[in-house]
Amino acid sequence: MRKILILGAGRSASSLIQYLIRHAGAQDWRVTVADQDQAHAEAMVKEGPEVATGLALDATKADARGALIAAHDLVISMLPAFMHMDVMQDCLRLKKHVITPSYVPDTLLPLDKEFKAAGSIVMNEMGLDPGIDHMSAMRILDRIRREDGRMEKFESYTGGLVAPESDDNPWGYKFSWNPRNVILAGQGGAAKYIQGGITKYIPYHKLFQQTVRVEVEGSGAFDGYANRDSLKYRAQYGIEEIPTLIRGTLRKAGYCEAWDAFVQLGCTDDGYPMELPKDATWPDYIESFLPDSPETDLRTRVSKYLRIPKDGSAMERLAWLGLFERNAIGVAGRSPAATLQHLLEKKWKLGPKDRDMVVMWHRFRYSVEGQHQTIHSTLSVIGEDTTHTAMARTVGLPIAIACKLVLNGGIKERGILLPLAPSIYDPILDELETLGIAFNEEELEA
Amino acid sequence: MRKILILGAGRSASSLIQYLIRHAGAQDWRVTVADQDQAHAEAMVKEGPEVATGLALDATKADARGALIAAHDLVISMLPAFMHMDVMQDCLRLKKHVITPSYVPDTLLPLDKEFKAAGSIVMNEMGLDPGIDHMSAMRILDRIRREDGRMEKFESYTGGLVAPESDDNPWGYKFSWNPRNVILAGQGGAAKYIQGGITKYIPYHKLFQQTVRVEVEGSGAFDGYANRDSLKYRAQYGIEEIPTLIRGTLRKAGYCEAWDAFVQLGCTDDGYPMELPKDATWPDYIESFLPDSPETDLRTRVSKYLRIPKDGSAMERLAWLGLFERNAIGVAGRSPAATLQHLLEKKWKLGPKDRDMVVMWHRFRYSVEGQHQTIHSTLSVIGEDTTHTAMARTVGLPIAIACKLVLNGGIKERGILLPLAPSIYDPILDELETLGIAFNEEELEA
Repeated sequence: MRKILILGAGRSASSLIQYLIRHAGAQDWRVTVADQDQAHAEAMVKEGPEVATGLALDATKADARGALIAAHDLVISMLPAFMHMDVMQDCLRLKKHVITPSYVPDTLLPLDKEFKAAGSIVMNEMGLDPGIDHMSAMRILDRIRREDGRMEKFESYTGGLVAPESDDNPWGYKFSWNPRNVILAGQGGAAKYIQGGITKYIPYHKLFQQTVRVEVEGSGAFDGYANRDSLKYRAQYGIEEIPTLIRGTLRKAGYCEAWDAFVQLGCTDDGYPMELPKDATWPDYIESFLPDSPETDLRTRVSKYLRIPKDGSAMERLAWLGLFERNAIGVAGRSPAATLQHLLEKKWKLGPKDRDMVVMWHRFRYSVEGQHQTIHSTLSVIGEDTTHTAMARTVGLPIAIACKLVLNGGIKERGILLPLAPSIYDPILDELETLGIAFNEEELEA
Repeated sequence: MRKILILGAGRSASSLIQYLIRHAGAQDWRVTVADQDQAHAEAMVKEGPEVATGLALDATKADARGALIAAHDLVISMLPAFMHMDVMQDCLRLKKHVITPSYVPDTLLPLDKEFKAAGSIVMNEMGLDPGIDHMSAMRILDRIRREDGRMEKFESYTGGLVAPESDDNPWGYKFSWNPRNVILAGQGGAAKYIQGGITKYIPYHKLFQQTVRVEVEGSGAFDGYANRDSLKYRAQYGIEEIPTLIRGTLRKAGYCEAWDAFVQLGCTDDGYPMELPKDATWPDYIESFLPDSPETDLRTRVSKYLRIPKDGSAMERLAWLGLFERNAIGVAGRSPAATLQHLLEKKWKLGPKDRDMVVMWHRFRYSVEGQHQTIHSTLSVIGEDTTHTAMARTVGLPIAIACKLVLNGGIKERGILLPLAPSIYDPILDELETLGIAFNEEELEA
C-alpha cells in the first residue's frame, strides 16, 4: 500500500484528487488531503471514503506538517508557491518524493545532490503552464532533432479562458484562475524574447499592444502577449541557437486592446492606495487618471486621451463593465489594481453553469535539408463543470499521472526533475490523451 | 570663535564653502571641510588657508566621524542622503546643530523631542528644491493669508538647466546635476497631484506627455512635468483645502516630448542587464526595443512605432544623439537606463566655458472678496562658471545663510525644522537677493 499526501486542496486540486481516488483501488493507494479548512478537505474526498481522508493542517506549522509527511510515501504540494520550499526541506530530510505544479524555486537547485543521495524525486512544473507546455513542446522538438531538423522559430502561447458556449461578455473572459494574477499580469519588468537573433524587450506599457493573432479551429481567435522571460528554457529545451523564440499568454481576440486602455490609464498599478471621494462611483475612478477637468462627457475624454475610437470595441468593453455609469465602487483605500479587481470579480465571474477552456498553441518552424517545415500543435480543453474545470483538469491530471509513474518505479532519475525527458513526457502525454487532453497537430511545408 | 564642519565636498558644496570662508573673518568662524578625497577637500578651501582646513574623512567610520563632529559647533552634511541619519544621530548625542539640503528622513521625525531636549537645531530641505521653493512659496502664501485671500490654485516648477548662452544642443539640456537622477526621473510610482478638488494620478509612461508650458521672460520657454507627490506639503504650507496643487520639474520646451520617446521605447528601464551583440552599436540598442525586424530604415521604424513624425523635432533630438549612426556603444551588460546614461554623459556634458541655469516658477491663484488674483513669481539664476554653477549657488548659499542665522542665535526654535516660518525664510531670502538670487514678481487681476 502506497500513501499519497496532498497539501492544499484549492480550486486546481479537484481533478487531481478525483483521479487519485478513482485509481486508489487498482493501484493500492491511500490518499490524504490536508487543507487549512477541514470541511473543505473532507468535501474533496467524499467520493472515496474507503481510500481517502480529508483533514485539517496549518501547513506553516513545521511539526504537524513534518509528522504528516513522514507518514506518507509521496507528497503533492498544491500550496501557494512561497510555501513549497519548507515542504521540500521536509521531503529531503524524510526521504520522500514530492511533486508540484509550480516553478522550481531558485533556492532549491543547490539541493539537487542531496535529493539524489536521499533517493528522492522532486518534480516541479508538472501542471499546465508550466507543465504540459514543456512536455508537448519537448516531444515535438525531440522529433525534429531526430529528423536532423534545424529549429528556426518556436512560438508557444497558453491561455486559461472561457468556453465558447459560456462566452457571453464582450471581453471573452471569465476568471478560472487567481483574479489578482490576471490583473497584475505582465508587471514586474520588461518582457524578453528573441526575434531573428536579436534579443528584444517590451516594457509593460507596450505589452498589450504587441500581440500576435492566433486562430484555433473550433475554439476561436485569440491574441497572445509575451511572457516575462521567453528565453528561460532555451538551454533546457536544447535550442540555444534558435533565432526566434517567444512564449506568451492567450486572451480572446480584442481583450488585449481593451486591457491596454487600463494599462495606459494607470488602472493596473498596485503601488499606492487611491484617494477617492466618499461614496465614489466608477466615473470618479476613471476621472483620477485623466489629466483634464470633468467638463465634457467622460467617455469622449477617455477615448481622446487614449486616442482610440469613441465607439470602437475597446471603448465598448470598458462601457460594458459599467465604468461610465454612476454606480458606487463599494471599496475604498485600495490600489487602482485592487479597486479594478473588485469590479472584475463581479463582472467576470464564472457562473454555476459556465464552462472554462484552456488553449495551448505551439508553432515550430524548422528546416530539413534546406526545406522549411512548420508544425502547428494545438490543445483545446473545455471544462466539465465548475469543479472539474479545464484549468483543474490540465493542472491536476499531469500531476496525478506523474504520481502514478513515480510510485510504480517508472522514473529512474532522482533529484530535481522537469518533465523534459521522453521517460516522463511520453507516458504522461499518452495518458492525458485518453483523458481527453489531446493535441491536434498540423504539418505544413513552408 | 565658532567652528563649522562640512561633511562631503561634492559639486554642490563650492559656493557654500566660498561663502563661509569669505565671512569667516567678520563672523569669527573656523571652517573644516571633510571629504573622502583629501586633495579635493584641500582644494576646496585654498581661498582661505587662515580660516579653513581640508581633511580626509571616511564618513562611514563612526569613530572618526564622531570625533570630528565633537570638535565643532555646527555640522553641514552634504553627504549622500542615505548617510545623513548617522550624522544626525551623532549630532543628537553630541548636542550639535546640523543643516542639510536633503529631504527629512522618515526615521528622523520620532527624534524631534530628543533634539529639542538636547537644544539642537536640525534643518533639512535647505537647498534649492527642496529649500528655496519652500521659502519663496511660503513668503507669498503667508502674504495672501494676511490679505484674507482664499487659495484656488498653486503651481510650482523648478529646473536645473543650461544657460541660454551655452544652450547649443537641440535638447536644451546639459548635466548640472546627478545624471542618473535625470535619467530615472519620474520612476518609482505614479505622480500624484490635485486638480479642481480631484486627486489625479499619472503613470510613468504618461508623465512626459502631460506637461505644462511655462514661459519665463529672458530665460525661454519650458515644459514642466509633475513630481512624484505634489501633495506632500499641503498641511505644512497650510493649504489643505486648495482645490488645485501641482509641483514639478522644468525642462527646455521640446525636451519632454523627445524624452518620452525613450520612455515609450523602454530605454529608461534600470531593472535588467541588456543582452546586446558583441561590439554593439547604438542602432543595435534601439533595435532591442522595436517589435519588428530590421528590414526597413531604423529611423522610419522608430517614428512609426512611436507614432511621431519622422522628421519632427523629437526624432531630430534622437538623431542628434547619434542613435541612428553605427558607432560602438562602448559599454556592455548594463541596464537600458545605464547604457543610455553612458551616451548622454558625453553628449550633455557641461563644457569648461558653459554656464548652467536654475529656473523656478510659481503661480498662485486666489480670490479676495470675490476678486480673482494671480501672482507669478519667477527665479532665474545663471551660473558664474563651472565651479560656482547656478546649482551650487542656489543649493549652497541658503545653507550658508542658515548656518550664519543659527550660529548668531537668529533661530529660537529647536528640533527638526523646515524653512517654512518667516523667522527663517525672511532673512535667507533677503540675503539671497543681495547675492543675485532674486525672484521677479508679477501680479495680475484675473
